[in-house]
Amino acid sequence: MHFAAILPLQSGASIRDYSLHYETYGTLNAAKSNAVLICHALNASHHVAGVYAGQTRSEGWWDNMIGPGKPVDTNQFFVIGINNLGSCFGSTGPMHVNPDSGRVYGANFPVVTVEDWVNAQARLLDVLGIQTLAAVMGGSLGGMQALSWTLQYPERVAHAVVVASAPNLTAENIAFNEVARRAIVTDPDFHGGHFYEHGTVPKRGLRIARMIGHITYLSDDVMNEKFGRQLRAAVRRDDAGGGTAHEAANAGAYRYSTQDIEFQIESYLRHQADKFAEYFDANTYLLITRALDYFDPARTYGGDLSHALARASCKFLLVSFTTDWRFAPKRSREIVKALLDNRRDVSYAEIDAPHGHDAFLLDDPRYVNVVRSYFDGIAKAVGGNP
Amino acid sequence: MHFAAILPLQSGASIRDYSLHYETYGTLNAAKSNAVLICHALNASHHVAGVYAGQTRSEGWWDNMIGPGKPVDTNQFFVIGINNLGSCFGSTGPMHVNPDSGRVYGANFPVVTVEDWVNAQARLLDVLGIQTLAAVMGGSLGGMQALSWTLQYPERVAHAVVVASAPNLTAENIAFNEVARRAIVTDPDFHGGHFYEHGTVPKRGLRIARMIGHITYLSDDVMNEKFGRQLRAAVRRDDAGGGTAHEAANAGAYRYSTQDIEFQIESYLRHQADKFAEYFDANTYLLITRALDYFDPARTYGGDLSHALARASCKFLLVSFTTDWRFAPKRSREIVKALLDNRRDVSYAEIDAPHGHDAFLLDDPRYVNVVRSYFDGIAKAVGGNP
Repeated sequence: MHFAAILPLQSGASIRDYSLHYETYGTLNAAKSNAVLICHALNASHHVAGVYAGQTRSEGWWDNMIGPGKPVDTNQFFVIGINNLGSCFGSTGPMHVNPDSGRVYGANFPVVTVEDWVNAQARLLDVLGIQTLAAVMGGSLGGMQALSWTLQYPERVAHAVVVASAPNLTAENIAFNEVARRAIVTDPDFHGGHFYEHGTVPKRGLRIARMIGHITYLSDDVMNEKFGRQLRAAVRRDDAGGGTAHEAANAGAYRYSTQDIEFQIESYLRHQADKFAEYFDANTYLLITRALDYFDPARTYGGDLSHALARASCKFLLVSFTTDWRFAPKRSREIVKALLDNRRDVSYAEIDAPHGHDAFLLDDPRYVNVVRSYFDGIAKAVGGNP
Repeated sequence: MHFAAILPLQSGASIRDYSLHYETYGTLNAAKSNAVLICHALNASHHVAGVYAGQTRSEGWWDNMIGPGKPVDTNQFFVIGINNLGSCFGSTGPMHVNPDSGRVYGANFPVVTVEDWVNAQARLLDVLGIQTLAAVMGGSLGGMQALSWTLQYPERVAHAVVVASAPNLTAENIAFNEVARRAIVTDPDFHGGHFYEHGTVPKRGLRIARMIGHITYLSDDVMNEKFGRQLRAAVRRDDAGGGTAHEAANAGAYRYSTQDIEFQIESYLRHQADKFAEYFDANTYLLITRALDYFDPARTYGGDLSHALARASCKFLLVSFTTDWRFAPKRSREIVKALLDNRRDVSYAEIDAPHGHDAFLLDDPRYVNVVRSYFDGIAKAVGGNP
């Protein structure tokens, strides 16, 4: 969807002639009362559910949660996924041409915030004729957008589902983001953010950023369970069969190298890093991590989150995961407390899952059932799809 | 101290004609029974205590713990600090010339392990005529060396003090090391580890490595307390006084930049990173993080730590810190349990300190008093200095 009109941004800058990529699932009912907006996190997109015809491994990033008969049931709800402004999956971003200068934005793409994304999403819903959302839902940074919806457009949201999120980043969260940004910005191929013109990609920096990210998405326990201190499997020539066979390196087989892969965890991280550097935009990484850093609805209320959330009038479901050390349960509890201080209707599930922050994308049955029953309740109230 | 003889290394390689920088404090008694070896961690050195005459800010890295009248009292003990082989503070390392090739070692410096360091330390003690250590002591990686002493030379150690350490690294620990190494190795100025010949230093990589390290040394809580979400102080021209004054940026003053420093935590990390990149050797960083990765005394016992520690015969003091998430208390407890399984004499203090891993270098009075009283006991047994 193209937007010619200027969108004022929180920074004081603005953007015009931008497009937002979006997908919808299910059918909008006549009353336009069954819309659910799904907000995405750092490296996800508008493609939240389903597959693209003829494309293998094209499942949406929340396909386990959203679809016909799934917890967010697209037989009942009209689900909308929007790629955020500044991202790199179709919506206008740093790799596109700035209509004011006629040159690719690069590092000059305006800084966007969670609040800006919510405003842009609201404009898209305006065009679709959707005044009120049955629910807005997101995990991690997506949960911040869901929370911000309830503050920026309280009259347009009936329910907010905020998963594995936080009312702002801690110093440690910001620190990890900053290391990732420094890795990207100091990569000689970054060229001050104008690498497109140089035909380069700061892949070294993107790889480091992704490795850091991955470590913080997983719990210590699940990393030990999946990888532990296991050495990289050696590829052994099977002379009898003529093929190759993988053989776990045995206890005597340290390679004694500082640069070669020695442990499975190293192999995994390098692989994830290489994949990510092939498709993700470096300027987008900077923009999105900064949006995370900046989000802090209590800030203009002297740090008083209860005061900040007084504007919210919808009902809430919050979910956190015990082993999530990136956005720990205590951060979700801060939101729950602030909402209860305002006598809001809040459900809260703290799921004892081993997977760390990544749990919000996984299939823990208790988690999935909590979301399912919450949306079943919404469907009954909405009347669902005629 | 120079060593002409070949030192066989765990990897199967060896090194000859190497030197170890060391310092001693206090006086060795006639019985040579009051020697205490202090083992250093990643970025520390042989300079464990005292100051260099005429040099400001030249305090040894454990000067709060070691010295006349201090917990490790150099009026009682003869304390020895040795810079480990492969480090960059005077002992033979990657920046020195390989006598076999006549060229600077660079990335060809042999991989060294905790066990190799202990062997090298033992040879130095041989030359000093010290057969038995009253105690060996270290924190973090230094604690691993202390533990390894009790296994490699059980008959030469009376007491081992192992602080904020672990019986091996977890997958997450290895992962953080690997990201740091990748940042260094993929810095174009690294030149495959032979950057000395190119007149460059891979400072970008070293900076990233140091930032990651710093985050893992601090607890989330102490980071929030020290930095929180505080914005970088603006330097304000004080027209009245003609000087400058620092002014905390107020709540309205986001700069909205992806590359400039916005938060105090960013400023702190960049400053630490810049300092580190000026003095630390990149190849040493690789070697020392690998020594951490490889340490795993239970490995040759099928992962059975109790079996592995059966060789130890000395008495032990272990100390851990509740907020240390790099080497968490549960890792120290694994060592304690394995020693108790062998009916060894073990004291264990789990200190409720807020500072994270860095606590082992700080002045928590409970921690300092535990160490003091333990060494007081050793001094009584040894008879101290005549």
